[in-house]
Amino acid sequence: MKIKVGISIRHVHLKQDDFNILFGPDAELTVYKELSQPGEFASDLKVSLKTDKNIIDNVRIIGPLRNYTQVEISKTDAYKLGLNPPVRDSGDLEGSEAITLIGPQGSVNLSEGCIIANRHIHITNDEMINYGLVGLSKVKIKIDGHKGGIVDNVALKASDNYCFELHLDTDDANAHFLKQGNLVTIIKDE
Amino acid sequence: MKIKVGISIRHVHLKQDDFNILFGPDAELTVYKELSQPGEFASDLKVSLKTDKNIIDNVRIIGPLRNYTQVEISKTDAYKLGLNPPVRDSGDLEGSEAITLIGPQGSVNLSEGCIIANRHIHITNDEMINYGLVGLSKVKIKIDGHKGGIVDNVALKASDNYCFELHLDTDDANAHFLKQGNLVTIIKDE
Repeated sequence: MKIKVGISIRHVHLKQDDFNILFGPDAELTVYKELSQPGEFASDLKVSLKTDKNIIDNVRIIGPLRNYTQVEISKTDAYKLGLNPPVRDSGDLEGSEAITLIGPQGSVNLSEGCIIANRHIHITNDEMINYGLVGLSKVKIKIDGHKGGIVDNVALKASDNYCFELHLDTDDANAHFLKQGNLVTIIKDE
Repeated sequence: MKIKVGISIRHVHLKQDDFNILFGPDAELTVYKELSQPGEFASDLKVSLKTDKNIIDNVRIIGPLRNYTQVEISKTDAYKLGLNPPVRDSGDLEGSEAITLIGPQGSVNLSEGCIIANRHIHITNDEMINYGLVGLSKVKIKIDGHKGGIVDNVALKASDNYCFELHLDTDDANAHFLKQGNLVTIIKDE
């Protein structure tokens, strides 16, 4: 059971209100590059992430707009910013970290919304059946190579329009010397 | 078999000649903080790491001086600097990456010397016997927690004056949410 790796560098999802504050009422969320999940794209637009301790510039907005604003960073970024974000699934933001977004037209102070993304796999319901994963909520991943190992707690996110892919953050990727598109092995977490 | 984690942030070991060039002939390598391995210390002195792509400031010199100059960085640092260092044991520098060190009194262009440190354990020969590890050159490490997993290819470095400790770089630590002094489990690599 091989799966392709997709590496998520720090990025931001925006709701309409926050988008308008950051980029102005007439801005458009134009496509820089289509991503592997259907409809998702890296946009041309970027913001800065600011805390009392530090700032990280050039953080890309991922489109399309959502009904919540969410900032996904790595633990390495978190140390730089002086934050301690929880590991969460997308949209599960209650009690997550506060952070300030700075755009060309304005800034948004989020009282919560900054997380470290849960390791996860996008998979279709048919693939869940074909790979014998029905009933499981998570798996492990085996990574080969000198900096290889096994990664625990990889959530299975099933939807019929998903493209089969493992999403890891830059810390997981760099620790294991993984690059975008590398193949790794799914292990059933039993 | 539990072992304490020590996290190695980017750092530099220097030989006498390079030390003199960087800090001047009268400089002293003064102790900022003793490290866990006997005789090893973080010094008060720092350099910058420079490549054609970028610079990283405030990189600490680890004492005492050695008979080779070696720069240890993480893969995350390597991307920032545009380097592709090999994973190596200390002192195994042939064909490793070139990098420039900049000190307050001068700079040193290394044609090789920049590596990513091999994951390793400091252990005494008695502990090798007591833990049943004699004959093994490496083990695996099991890490608990939501970002846990198993880390492969952890070299055993045995010497009677070592302090029992696992050394990981910041990528391995951050990927697994490990902090200095956390306890993890040794698994025999059979």
